[in-house]
Amino acid sequence: MEILSVISNRHDEMIDITGAVQSIISKQGIRSGICMIYTPHTTAAITINENADPSVVNDIITGLNHLNFEKIQFKHAEGNSPSHIKSSIIGCSELVCIEKGILQLGTWQGIYFCEFDGPRSRNVYIKIIHSE
Amino acid sequence: MEILSVISNRHDEMIDITGAVQSIISKQGIRSGICMIYTPHTTAAITINENADPSVVNDIITGLNHLNFEKIQFKHAEGNSPSHIKSSIIGCSELVCIEKGILQLGTWQGIYFCEFDGPRSRNVYIKIIHSE
Amino acid sequence: MEILSVISNRHDEMIDITGAVQSIISKQGIRSGICMIYTPHTTAAITINENADPSVVNDIITGLNHLNFEKIQFKHAEGNSPSHIKSSIIGCSELVCIEKGILQLGTWQGIYFCEFDGPRSRNVYIKIIHSE
Repeated sequence: MEILSVISNRHDEMIDITGAVQSIISKQGIRSGICMIYTPHTTAAITINENADPSVVNDIITGLNHLNFEKIQFKHAEGNSPSHIKSSIIGCSELVCIEKGILQLGTWQGIYFCEFDGPRSRNVYIKIIHSE
Repeated sequence: MEILSVISNRHDEMIDITGAVQSIISKQGIRSGICMIYTPHTTAAITINENADPSVVNDIITGLNHLNFEKIQFKHAEGNSPSHIKSSIIGCSELVCIEKGILQLGTWQGIYFCEFDGPRSRNVYIKIIHSE
Repeated sequence: MEILSVISNRHDEMIDITGAVQSIISKQGIRSGICMIYTPHTTAAITINENADPSVVNDIITGLNHLNFEKIQFKHAEGNSPSHIKSSIIGCSELVCIEKGILQLGTWQGIYFCEFDGPRSRNVYIKIIHSE
């Protein structure tokens, strides 16, 4: 398992980590397998979505905020329950296939670290399972 | 990694691909492991839900549309930001255990390709990790 | 694959299964790999979130109910379509890395079985893929 460091600058932010994940695979010389991308935080998430037009990831943040979790009276004293809910809705990990040493992403897909309670210094775990 | 072709006929549609996934496992002769089902598109998703009453998957589409993402003023010029948001909420992959060559789904579970921006011609990647 | 039994006591409930999952890993003597936690039910889910303050998981249930799926006229005759939708939004499985025989969860993370249509007797499948 390797650990990537990610620094967020805003309360809600999606940070493209595709290049950093591919670098780990290339360095390890893995040809075929599955790459797991996992964040060990409870107010963050990992998702895969469009990396061509940067508006898309901003629109995803807008869409989640449109659900108005901020308006609920929550019990958790820290006040960041909406961030915890977004984390469980998006999920704290993603998987991508590896073939010939390359992440098998679609043409428009990138891997994103999702910050829902920033700015903060965060980690992402990368674990590769080799096949064949 | 194998590639399944899926053709959607509506803007929002859930297509049962369970049989096609099981066929790949049977053809490869895998006895025990994990099967990853992944779609390389940013306005589609993979989920596992009830395959007994076809109303359930239609109700899931209704439920997602009830969140009213279409009413938001988005920045992305293509106009399909609601489809991108649904993709990240549901997620672009699922995993199922394999034992004795059979997908270990629950009694009522099927594997669904979720179209959120159709009709289109789409792909699903199937990757199997063998255990022991 | 091993099977954990979980009994829920409320309609919506999040049950911490972290200790039970770690016990299976310890018993099998796995040092490094990936642990898959999967529920074979279509009105339940698995998520990873905060286990320090028990208010957080209650707030996650409150947040999902705030989406008002109960107000929709659904087609599925059983009346539990909101439970199916929540299952697909949260997802029926999670993955955690294993290193030195220990689940690599974050400081505040626990693994939760999510009941959305209880009370019921439920199962969780645990599948471990060994690496190296």
